[in-house]
Amino acid sequence: MKKEFNWGIIGTGGIAHKFADALQVLPNAKIYAVASRSLQKAQSFACEFNVPHAYGSYEELAVNKELDIVYVATPHNLHCENTLMCLEHKIPVLCEKPFAINSAEVDRMIKTAGANNVFLMEAMWTRFLPHIAVTIDLIREGRIGAVKLLRADFGIQILWDPKHRVFDPGLGGGSLLDVGIYPVFLSLLLLGMPEKIEAMATLGKTTNVDESCGILFHYQDGQIASLFSSVVAKTGVEAEIIGEHGRILIHKDFLLPTTLTLIHNDDTSEEIEPEFIGNGMNYEAAEVMNCLAEGKMESDLMSHDMSRKLISLLDRIRKKCGIVYPDHD
Amino acid sequence: MKKEFNWGIIGTGGIAHKFADALQVLPNAKIYAVASRSLQKAQSFACEFNVPHAYGSYEELAVNKELDIVYVATPHNLHCENTLMCLEHKIPVLCEKPFAINSAEVDRMIKTAGANNVFLMEAMWTRFLPHIAVTIDLIREGRIGAVKLLRADFGIQILWDPKHRVFDPGLGGGSLLDVGIYPVFLSLLLLGMPEKIEAMATLGKTTNVDESCGILFHYQDGQIASLFSSVVAKTGVEAEIIGEHGRILIHKDFLLPTTLTLIHNDDTSEEIEPEFIGNGMNYEAAEVMNCLAEGKMESDLMSHDMSRKLISLLDRIRKKCGIVYPDHD
Repeated sequence: MKKEFNWGIIGTGGIAHKFADALQVLPNAKIYAVASRSLQKAQSFACEFNVPHAYGSYEELAVNKELDIVYVATPHNLHCENTLMCLEHKIPVLCEKPFAINSAEVDRMIKTAGANNVFLMEAMWTRFLPHIAVTIDLIREGRIGAVKLLRADFGIQILWDPKHRVFDPGLGGGSLLDVGIYPVFLSLLLLGMPEKIEAMATLGKTTNVDESCGILFHYQDGQIASLFSSVVAKTGVEAEIIGEHGRILIHKDFLLPTTLTLIHNDDTSEEIEPEFIGNGMNYEAAEVMNCLAEGKMESDLMSHDMSRKLISLLDRIRKKCGIVYPDHD
Repeated sequence: MKKEFNWGIIGTGGIAHKFADALQVLPNAKIYAVASRSLQKAQSFACEFNVPHAYGSYEELAVNKELDIVYVATPHNLHCENTLMCLEHKIPVLCEKPFAINSAEVDRMIKTAGANNVFLMEAMWTRFLPHIAVTIDLIREGRIGAVKLLRADFGIQILWDPKHRVFDPGLGGGSLLDVGIYPVFLSLLLLGMPEKIEAMATLGKTTNVDESCGILFHYQDGQIASLFSSVVAKTGVEAEIIGEHGRILIHKDFLLPTTLTLIHNDDTSEEIEPEFIGNGMNYEAAEVMNCLAEGKMESDLMSHDMSRKLISLLDRIRKKCGIVYPDHD
């Protein structure tokens, strides 16, 4: 368990930087290689994070035999292809969310991991955050009674730019896969699979990506989840789980390390501030290294089954809304 | 304009008490008569509010020639019948929300008001609250830019009791007409009529009323409203209007006199505390008296057209959810 893990990172964008920052707090994690389609970007990233190997193609990284795990941080539309390449080279993969563009891709990734007997996990990092664990515990302990409703929103504002990936449907752009996935995942994590879905989206006039998306889930036990996302308006980014005895308000930004308020029905409340270290992505990285050390093929906390369910929800929401990603449907 | 208005009140439940309280701050309002199907309840109410006339039937009140206006505060299912009776006796009516159970009833009420040339208004009291006026002004002034999203919820917890009106479908029970109407009305007021509606409800296992209801509206200009209501879980009862430059958070309870926070996209914010008097219902009562003094047949702020639109939205939500009120469909 004292082994040091050599991480490779594919992609050098914003999320790759955050992840590399996160690894700094984990003494058993070493960033061993980085790859970009631009050698210059890879070298600049390598310089910034003191990475010994920088490659100008993803393929070069995938044949490095010293790697224990690769983190795929490319645009959504490349997740499947990049992940398959690593798995086929028997390198374990942590792939950024959304795991892929659709269920068919996720299926292929999971099957390829199985066929090659290699670890694979979706980088759904909120799953591992301390305040999410506390939320699950509070619900399990019955602190809010039977859950009746869940609300969550995640809206950011990105100024219109046809070259920005979120406005490019070919890259899986739009609010749903980029930010809407967090409210959807929270509902899946806390309430399971809904039996009914309704959704509506505002498609951008020029590139047709979903600028905003509203979602309703209904569950067998009668719970309702009310969710929305946007890339054209900054929202409160809160989540709230409402039960018969009270509610848990997860403060902004509910998907980052944050605090909770447990509000009882008599309007008294308790502030809960779970401790955390790093920027939060370190928790998923630690989980990956624990799984590798134990020889696991998947995480119990963020299993392949969970990823299949998540992408199936996103697929169904898309169909309801008429959201299409060209070359991926 | 200095005239004193003689109010009659039909119904002596909780809302009638609140309304009678509200009239105390209006020097030109006098509660002149009260009617209940129980003379004892009418007398007790008369005693509490110093009302000269107490009747054990609604019909006796409706023939009192001294009345300038009647406030109908009976259960939902009686609104239409009680209102028609007053209108046919040429008495102006302020009828509690929901105006009636369905569009057909509202239609009949409005037509009867026209045929008898008598004032009629739905008691959608939030329409007249100071913080709602401020919200409308802030939006009009462009303080949050183009509106993109609206969220609002109103959930209360009423413990299961088959005799309670909210659990009785025959009385128009359930969350939608009782509390869900407020988020729906706020959306209608601020964004107009949606071009698309989705909704889902949890119907109670015993009496089949909607215990919780989730609603999505989509508007021609691309806005999305995300709303929910409940009678089995106490929610935050907030509303938020999210624009491209910022958002207006209407604090709990958004439908009562309350305060606002204008949150800019740079996370700076302004607290806004509109002044108000009374419990808030006085504003709708003042509007009614102003309209009567001016000889109007309807209020410009809460017009017949607005009430028709509101009930048509509620009807469409019900159809989506399978909510049925026996004897009213």
